[in-house]
Amino acid sequence: MPARRAFRLAVCQFQVSPSKEANLARAREFIRRAAAEGARLVVLPEMFVCPYVAELFPRYAESFPDGEALRMLREAAREEELFLVGGSIPEREGEKLYNSSFVFDPGGNLLARHRKVHLFDVDLPGGLSFRESATLSPGAGATVINTPLGTIGVAVCFDIRFPALFSEMACKGAEIVVIPGAFNLITGPAHWELLLRARAVDHQVYTVGAAPARDSRAAYVAFGHSMVVNPWAEVIARAGPEEAVLTAEIDLNHVTRVRRELPLLNTEARSMNQRPEL
Amino acid sequence: MPARRAFRLAVCQFQVSPSKEANLARAREFIRRAAAEGARLVVLPEMFVCPYVAELFPRYAESFPDGEALRMLREAAREEELFLVGGSIPEREGEKLYNSSFVFDPGGNLLARHRKVHLFDVDLPGGLSFRESATLSPGAGATVINTPLGTIGVAVCFDIRFPALFSEMACKGAEIVVIPGAFNLITGPAHWELLLRARAVDHQVYTVGAAPARDSRAAYVAFGHSMVVNPWAEVIARAGPEEAVLTAEIDLNHVTRVRRELPLLNTEARSMNQRPEL
Repeated sequence: MPARRAFRLAVCQFQVSPSKEANLARAREFIRRAAAEGARLVVLPEMFVCPYVAELFPRYAESFPDGEALRMLREAAREEELFLVGGSIPEREGEKLYNSSFVFDPGGNLLARHRKVHLFDVDLPGGLSFRESATLSPGAGATVINTPLGTIGVAVCFDIRFPALFSEMACKGAEIVVIPGAFNLITGPAHWELLLRARAVDHQVYTVGAAPARDSRAAYVAFGHSMVVNPWAEVIARAGPEEAVLTAEIDLNHVTRVRRELPLLNTEARSMNQRPEL
Repeated sequence: MPARRAFRLAVCQFQVSPSKEANLARAREFIRRAAAEGARLVVLPEMFVCPYVAELFPRYAESFPDGEALRMLREAAREEELFLVGGSIPEREGEKLYNSSFVFDPGGNLLARHRKVHLFDVDLPGGLSFRESATLSPGAGATVINTPLGTIGVAVCFDIRFPALFSEMACKGAEIVVIPGAFNLITGPAHWELLLRARAVDHQVYTVGAAPARDSRAAYVAFGHSMVVNPWAEVIARAGPEEAVLTAEIDLNHVTRVRRELPLLNTEARSMNQRPEL
């Protein structure tokens, strides 16, 4: 009988305020609650330290390894003995800023850093415009981490719209992809669940969408609705718009089974070999 | 004011029997009905000439330009003066068979042929197994056609699960992708709508899924539920499991608008340029 390869995961969906100190305390409290529920992998939302406003990112930015947010994440992972995907924060390196997700192991060691590859520059119907590129630079590729829990890919928000990035993660062995993301009240109802289910079904992975809780007074109102989807594209856990610790059981044997029944990765590889131009 | 670039499309969802002659007559009748409803682009289902059983494909196969199905399609396009995506048929070339979709213009001229790239070889839960590769060979790439109605991509059924093929179509200018497909009672309820919406939202195209009507006595029971999805991932027309002429209004200005609001194609291109390894 194969090892069960199953564990509990939690998404911390909390409101984000303009006070970095308050946000860090809130995040720490939610990580504690997630640990108390038995979670071995915990995921925080995108830009959980600051309002989601491009012009404010420089004011909240930190450089690895220093900074209050990075210290809190490292210590929380170690104290609660869990794998922690620290949502994302504005990261400074030299002259540049990135929207970066830092991942720590239960020893408090940095496992990986994913810098959002696809920046959110849009002019949505209803007048919602956003220009992440006003202050941020894009990352350069997919992030996949081998852990004792399984092989984990990390993407940030708008990255979810780009299947090639997920193909790359799947080729590198990803079985779970965590996506800290702050969709809004236009794209959220239209596409958040669809995209989490689409990436799960295409690449036969668990997808985990980690959103901030909704705060209708905020400059940018997040959709909420953190969600966990299995590799058959079924939503197995779903939060509302309000604060929540969302837990789900991840069973990686399910990934193996779906990939055996519907061998998409092999079919893709075979068809690529057929194509004279590639 | 820009030209409206809008037209009516129809999907012919009919039952397929073991009689090729009866299937061709049924298809011809549905094309007539679609024309009477004002459709300028008409789409037939996958393998509309024969039962969807791999071992039977050789018996029903035709070679271009001869064969009863190809003749019917060519003449129907010309007589009804419409663009016709002839679902798919088993096509023979030399020793090989393909699952091929032939597209004709209102003059009865062949515009394109798409050979299904990704063959359906699966072992689904509940005991449904299928081996298209037992009798078929795969096609070699994306098919995109410039027409006065707009730029049309063609994919067949299982192809819909492979985003890279759709990326290629979008890069080549596709604004509408038609997908003759015969999902079954396992994958249909789970994934048919999801995949049509996913491909639409990722590549900002209209997607058109053309299925046979359900026949619960058939060896392979098709799901039905032909569907048209707009580039914002909204289902704008949807059939049930039974026979139907499904019509929808296609407005290519909607493609242009969504691509301007949410510039995914530009973002993808920019991010690819950032990546040192590509």
